[in-house]
Amino acid sequence: MSNNKTLKVYSPYDNSLIKELPLMDKNELEEALKTAYDLFLDQSNWILAHERISLLEKVRKIMEGKVEELTKIAAEEGGKPYQDSKVEVLRAINGVKIATEEIARLTGEQIPMGLTASTTNRLAFTTREPIGVVASLSAFNHPLNLIVHQTVTAFAAGCPVIVKPASATPLSCKAFIEILKEAGVPKGWVQMVLIENDLAEKLATDKRVNYLSFIGSEKVGWSLKSKLAPGTRCALEHGGTAPVIVEADADLEDMIPGLVKGGFYHAGQVCVSVQKIFVHESIARKVADEMAKQAKDLKVGDPLDEETEVGPLIRTEEVDRVEKWVKEAEKEGADILCGGKRISQSCYEPTILWNPDQNSKVSKEEIFGPVVCIYSYKERQEAVRLANSLEYHFQAAVFTKNVDTALDTVQKLNATAIMVNDHTAFRADWMPFGGRDASGEGLGGIPYSMHEMTRVKLMVFKSKFL
Amino acid sequence: MSNNKTLKVYSPYDNSLIKELPLMDKNELEEALKTAYDLFLDQSNWILAHERISLLEKVRKIMEGKVEELTKIAAEEGGKPYQDSKVEVLRAINGVKIATEEIARLTGEQIPMGLTASTTNRLAFTTREPIGVVASLSAFNHPLNLIVHQTVTAFAAGCPVIVKPASATPLSCKAFIEILKEAGVPKGWVQMVLIENDLAEKLATDKRVNYLSFIGSEKVGWSLKSKLAPGTRCALEHGGTAPVIVEADADLEDMIPGLVKGGFYHAGQVCVSVQKIFVHESIARKVADEMAKQAKDLKVGDPLDEETEVGPLIRTEEVDRVEKWVKEAEKEGADILCGGKRISQSCYEPTILWNPDQNSKVSKEEIFGPVVCIYSYKERQEAVRLANSLEYHFQAAVFTKNVDTALDTVQKLNATAIMVNDHTAFRADWMPFGGRDASGEGLGGIPYSMHEMTRVKLMVFKSKFL
Amino acid sequence: MSNNKTLKVYSPYDNSLIKELPLMDKNELEEALKTAYDLFLDQSNWILAHERISLLEKVRKIMEGKVEELTKIAAEEGGKPYQDSKVEVLRAINGVKIATEEIARLTGEQIPMGLTASTTNRLAFTTREPIGVVASLSAFNHPLNLIVHQTVTAFAAGCPVIVKPASATPLSCKAFIEILKEAGVPKGWVQMVLIENDLAEKLATDKRVNYLSFIGSEKVGWSLKSKLAPGTRCALEHGGTAPVIVEADADLEDMIPGLVKGGFYHAGQVCVSVQKIFVHESIARKVADEMAKQAKDLKVGDPLDEETEVGPLIRTEEVDRVEKWVKEAEKEGADILCGGKRISQSCYEPTILWNPDQNSKVSKEEIFGPVVCIYSYKERQEAVRLANSLEYHFQAAVFTKNVDTALDTVQKLNATAIMVNDHTAFRADWMPFGGRDASGEGLGGIPYSMHEMTRVKLMVFKSKFL
Amino acid sequence: MSNNKTLKVYSPYDNSLIKELPLMDKNELEEALKTAYDLFLDQSNWILAHERISLLEKVRKIMEGKVEELTKIAAEEGGKPYQDSKVEVLRAINGVKIATEEIARLTGEQIPMGLTASTTNRLAFTTREPIGVVASLSAFNHPLNLIVHQTVTAFAAGCPVIVKPASATPLSCKAFIEILKEAGVPKGWVQMVLIENDLAEKLATDKRVNYLSFIGSEKVGWSLKSKLAPGTRCALEHGGTAPVIVEADADLEDMIPGLVKGGFYHAGQVCVSVQKIFVHESIARKVADEMAKQAKDLKVGDPLDEETEVGPLIRTEEVDRVEKWVKEAEKEGADILCGGKRISQSCYEPTILWNPDQNSKVSKEEIFGPVVCIYSYKERQEAVRLANSLEYHFQAAVFTKNVDTALDTVQKLNATAIMVNDHTAFRADWMPFGGRDASGEGLGGIPYSMHEMTRVKLMVFKSKFL
Repeated sequence: MSNNKTLKVYSPYDNSLIKELPLMDKNELEEALKTAYDLFLDQSNWILAHERISLLEKVRKIMEGKVEELTKIAAEEGGKPYQDSKVEVLRAINGVKIATEEIARLTGEQIPMGLTASTTNRLAFTTREPIGVVASLSAFNHPLNLIVHQTVTAFAAGCPVIVKPASATPLSCKAFIEILKEAGVPKGWVQMVLIENDLAEKLATDKRVNYLSFIGSEKVGWSLKSKLAPGTRCALEHGGTAPVIVEADADLEDMIPGLVKGGFYHAGQVCVSVQKIFVHESIARKVADEMAKQAKDLKVGDPLDEETEVGPLIRTEEVDRVEKWVKEAEKEGADILCGGKRISQSCYEPTILWNPDQNSKVSKEEIFGPVVCIYSYKERQEAVRLANSLEYHFQAAVFTKNVDTALDTVQKLNATAIMVNDHTAFRADWMPFGGRDASGEGLGGIPYSMHEMTRVKLMVFKSKFL
Repeated sequence: MSNNKTLKVYSPYDNSLIKELPLMDKNELEEALKTAYDLFLDQSNWILAHERISLLEKVRKIMEGKVEELTKIAAEEGGKPYQDSKVEVLRAINGVKIATEEIARLTGEQIPMGLTASTTNRLAFTTREPIGVVASLSAFNHPLNLIVHQTVTAFAAGCPVIVKPASATPLSCKAFIEILKEAGVPKGWVQMVLIENDLAEKLATDKRVNYLSFIGSEKVGWSLKSKLAPGTRCALEHGGTAPVIVEADADLEDMIPGLVKGGFYHAGQVCVSVQKIFVHESIARKVADEMAKQAKDLKVGDPLDEETEVGPLIRTEEVDRVEKWVKEAEKEGADILCGGKRISQSCYEPTILWNPDQNSKVSKEEIFGPVVCIYSYKERQEAVRLANSLEYHFQAAVFTKNVDTALDTVQKLNATAIMVNDHTAFRADWMPFGGRDASGEGLGGIPYSMHEMTRVKLMVFKSKFL
Repeated sequence: MSNNKTLKVYSPYDNSLIKELPLMDKNELEEALKTAYDLFLDQSNWILAHERISLLEKVRKIMEGKVEELTKIAAEEGGKPYQDSKVEVLRAINGVKIATEEIARLTGEQIPMGLTASTTNRLAFTTREPIGVVASLSAFNHPLNLIVHQTVTAFAAGCPVIVKPASATPLSCKAFIEILKEAGVPKGWVQMVLIENDLAEKLATDKRVNYLSFIGSEKVGWSLKSKLAPGTRCALEHGGTAPVIVEADADLEDMIPGLVKGGFYHAGQVCVSVQKIFVHESIARKVADEMAKQAKDLKVGDPLDEETEVGPLIRTEEVDRVEKWVKEAEKEGADILCGGKRISQSCYEPTILWNPDQNSKVSKEEIFGPVVCIYSYKERQEAVRLANSLEYHFQAAVFTKNVDTALDTVQKLNATAIMVNDHTAFRADWMPFGGRDASGEGLGGIPYSMHEMTRVKLMVFKSKFL
Repeated sequence: MSNNKTLKVYSPYDNSLIKELPLMDKNELEEALKTAYDLFLDQSNWILAHERISLLEKVRKIMEGKVEELTKIAAEEGGKPYQDSKVEVLRAINGVKIATEEIARLTGEQIPMGLTASTTNRLAFTTREPIGVVASLSAFNHPLNLIVHQTVTAFAAGCPVIVKPASATPLSCKAFIEILKEAGVPKGWVQMVLIENDLAEKLATDKRVNYLSFIGSEKVGWSLKSKLAPGTRCALEHGGTAPVIVEADADLEDMIPGLVKGGFYHAGQVCVSVQKIFVHESIARKVADEMAKQAKDLKVGDPLDEETEVGPLIRTEEVDRVEKWVKEAEKEGADILCGGKRISQSCYEPTILWNPDQNSKVSKEEIFGPVVCIYSYKERQEAVRLANSLEYHFQAAVFTKNVDTALDTVQKLNATAIMVNDHTAFRADWMPFGGRDASGEGLGGIPYSMHEMTRVKLMVFKSKFL
């Protein structure tokens, strides 16, 4: 009994219609929830570890045969350039492997007994169990890889999962769901739901859901958290402003191409995109100018073109917003060293801002666009203070040759991960990844997500023989 | 600028006034929050690990010299019988030790790099940092030990902590705070606030608080969670109904005294109190009768009397409630095998109910009083189903001699901890402890709390030499 | 400059010549050692983790295409029946996978600093490094799987390895070396040497070897250990007598086929073969008779025949020895319930002995042939005492339905692994596996071996900023 | 039936007789071995974890009351200056604490099952058990702390231990044994044996001994290893030459006092004493001269004098040896920048040698005396090569401000621990500590030793319900 509404998928680059998909109504969502919950409740439905391993190995094999196809789907609907989309697809395949391997690590440990007189005669161990039904609300910027992070983790951990892809990028998700089916993943374990936002909230806050995995804006994330049913845990992955501190002794030759990549990769639409670079005054302008020079050379355009380095923003409104923010920053004192203009309805020039005001939006909010701010500083402690001053704390970086400076800055920066001599957008899919404070909750990275999707069960044997 | 309001502490046993303490007003709470937050923000204030260790060793020594004094304070204000209060004090002392030792385990690990071509030339490690300001809202039933669980953990982990004791039992907390002071714990790191409920909510939801530790009713807990500031993590420890499954082959001689202790310890006012016992029909009535016999022999009375085994409930209203629930259960079909009456304004007889209806309140809600329900079952799977049927899942137990039955029941019961041949109220302060689903969030137990009060920081060195 | 000596490989079943291979002389061995040592000494030769992973994934893929071929080679040269050899091949493939996955686990951890005043201002981490050149001396009974355990582990851990297969079964090793080559494993990292025993000793004791992996007789193993160069670590995997304790309440229906399989698998030529079964007197003879009945039905014969369940012993001398031991046991009081005779030069009947004397060789030495001894006992403690009484302690088992009995027996038995309600020959290739006391040294199992083939390196940063 | 032989303990400083103690004969040693072995064999003798914890807490308390007494005993018999001996005593007390705390970590873990079809229906866990009787042969240079490392570890791990202190320093050990007795450690669990070398070998190689802990010369250590009974594991802690690499950018002000302390602490009689310092040629002579200046100021003399910084060598023969080696080095090209002479029969001047030949004994052997060699280098890789060139590899150090240089040198140096900007003699008693290659076997450090003194026991439950 569908409502006959549809989801239209447009190319972010030229706004052409790619595909139209049926939207689910409330009843269909209810059906999905019921299916998932019933699967979970009855342990006899659970899929054995070795079967999950076999199924995921098949998934990986099928994906390996579809790299080109998946790349194109992702690039077209999401706007990430072909070359980078291909890297994403390869990472997604590797992600399936990481999750498959982690199944063997979902283990418990002995809890010591007898450390006090009243705990003698006991032997205790923990195991780990799947947490229950997982609801995943995904984001557009890695249309395949995030789906892997938010579904394969759950399936591998033994949880039924219902995934809602970003409205802009459902096609990569759909293609992946079909791969799971082809591999033989039993019905109901990984369900895709195409729903509107009100139903998405209904899904997230349904009491049958034991775990919400959300990637997206902080506003939505924290609001959803406040509405969760009692007992539902969540992982929220929002954004940040990815501060970078560049000391006077940094190795510029290695650094600058890295910062340019880290700042303009996917037009800056990544939660750990290089956004704010604090450079020691002795080299600040030099660094800024050189970055501007390299940014100018970036090829902006059609994501399906193999030469393209920077594609469109996901929606016209985003270009509008970036345009507005940059103008505001300029008005408030920033110099535009390169870029600063929209190229088309969908594309914006890679832009370097010099010394924007700390109160300009580009300094205070996540830009999520192709704009990098460079600030000059006198004292490192001041740069650290500014880097920490917002409520977003995710990934950060420091460039220095000095071991003391590196260790001190790592200690002082408030971030989940700090790169020493590398840009902030570095990520390995198995490393701990997630925002602190306003930037999110829970620790991501495939193995970490899988552990969060399980819960500890302790068994304590009491016996006079122990 | 205090509001001159006071908190009156009454004996739960005879309702006499023990002490009157000043209540804090909004400004004083603000001062406490500011103090804690400022301490945390500036890393130069942080107390070094070896200093925290020394301070806590002093705390432990002072406590060891005050066992009698602390026992009496706790027994008088909380109503737990003297002997059991003394055990609580000794556990609290041991808890300080556990936390002290855990400081050395707040460590990170290497994160492998180079597993893919794009992650070569890197070396990565995690460390653990204090999460920030901790707010602890405590409960009355273990007035000293819970304070240790909710403050020493934070201090040991490097977090400033603000603790609000239960309104009924602030004196043990106060005595502990004085011990910390005597030991030399620097000002501001562990602050007690005596505040009314609206301010308690203000404390819990203040954005400077990074971690809320709440022990208390599920209603309050989940409500607080929904109001937390973005970025605030929480641990909620609510209650449960502690199901026990007794198979026909159980060793009754060992079991029955354990179940009586586990059911009537502290008049059942413990979140893992034995409440619902499912016994195979072949022995059910025999077990029930024998338990009733032993329950009748329990000495109920003044908690300060060393002979007392069961003391008062914390408030008259609770006795009223229990009285009402038992009457309702009887009306709905339960047989009262022993007890079933209030003894005084404050005390209620240890009560065993035979086969109450599954829809009676005593079957569906946490009783938190001296009432144990015994149900007869035919098939173990049915008993498991009933044991799992509520939304509370905390600790559970199974009694059987059979290894297959034990393993199967452990697997099937939905609980964080399952005792095999022991009652549900077993707890070692270092073991994982906490409710699932509606029973709570986060994993407690001193070492686990300390880990939750820290967060991971990853550092990734990039170098061509790696 | 070879010595022109050759190694002749005969079928253990019919003694026909399968192949003749050139033996290496001293100079060739020296060359192999030099190659391996030079590779290790210069870190620039080391193969990166992601390259080792890729290479091993290729190895696995190639093996998956050669299951039939590898099965036949192994069955023909080793005498293990075709069906069991196929299982071995599949396990070997899985072993390559386990080792590949474990590469990501060869990681270090943070070592806490600052726990005392004199250790402040420091940050410390460990990593793991390959230990150096590994020499592996292998055994005949799993001609492919043991080679995987003794070479792939080393290669995966980053160590050059020189492997000497058992003289009786070099062909599976040779086939595997060719697969490594085909997969692209660089020259020198995994070298096979066909050498006589004196050169094998030279290899094991060469000072350039940092780790000896030995699987074989205890006599040779301990002797080699005493001759190792200073600094050479070793893992020795010898045999045992695999005691089993069967309580009166055991589930016989499940148990007996398991014990028959565990006792006669590969004609008992496995280091954890079921050899000594202690059965409670109330059911002992019944168990013995039923086992004898099932043992009589085993199909003994040509390992290449798919129907064969028990094949030949590896050499005629072994059949001679088993024949002698059984005769001796009979003379010393044992009853022969089935078997007790050689079938041919190479095959011996599956044999069950009833109550042999505790001083007969079949009770005191590892039989390594198709002979199982069953003893009747009155008291479990006495059975445990007898099970522990020899110097060999490897795997053991207990069959009982009672949870207390199970836990107590697990505690009391001196063994590395104790199966509860399963036979002693159970092994997962990732579980810890190895003998205690005279049965060996070091802990095997693929992940454990890999860890033993690495060593910890601690780095301690000192800085006033820490 | 003692042999009436005695052990005379002389002051290493003035050769005066401190005490005469009876030596044990063969029968007494046999009695000690029998006692220990019988305790171990019967699990009912084993001391429960909480009892071991209580006993060791008492030991610590008693030690805390005897710091002065223990300091004087150690300083007098061992010759380590009073101030440093006091530090040793405090470390020994802390060592007891570390071991006590580690008891709770001697735990096992879940081993995953069901990763393959043939391993389903199983649940597996490991625990850790005491390894058996431990024999500890100790060294003179930390007469109290090493005894703690070699006995308390064993006792805490649940093993009976027989300890032979160094012949030169039995009095600290004796005092410690008396403390254990006073604390109530049951008879037989920690036995001191005063025996001559032939009996020490008998002890080490007795088949009832399951673990040998040896600290001393590599010659004796490797020889003992080669004679161990089958099944006896060992930890050997020998010496090294503790190379240090000083880059041109090192912070000399911090470094030089550290190197002087690390080189002349206990007159260089420490297995990780700074011995060979490779300094970049641009600053080498400056570093050498400054070190010589500071070394000259060290106060050499009576270890009982609180002002003394460097005491005697343990025996006159050692002074003779050092004298000879320095003369030889001078003859072979070294310059003596300070020291170079014996002060008395027992004391030798702190000595700095400039550029000794790489083939002089001071460059090739462990000096174990107050002599430090400084070498000038052009290229760091060459310094690394020389630092790695001997067969001893224990602790090492690098001084540099550069993060790349630090990481690269840490990777390239062959050592168990590498200090970055700290001297080689740094040690925390809980960190991993031990020689590689010729420098020893096994990993020390109190928690590591305790783990080595236990062994894994795996239990695998099989059940159709799993």
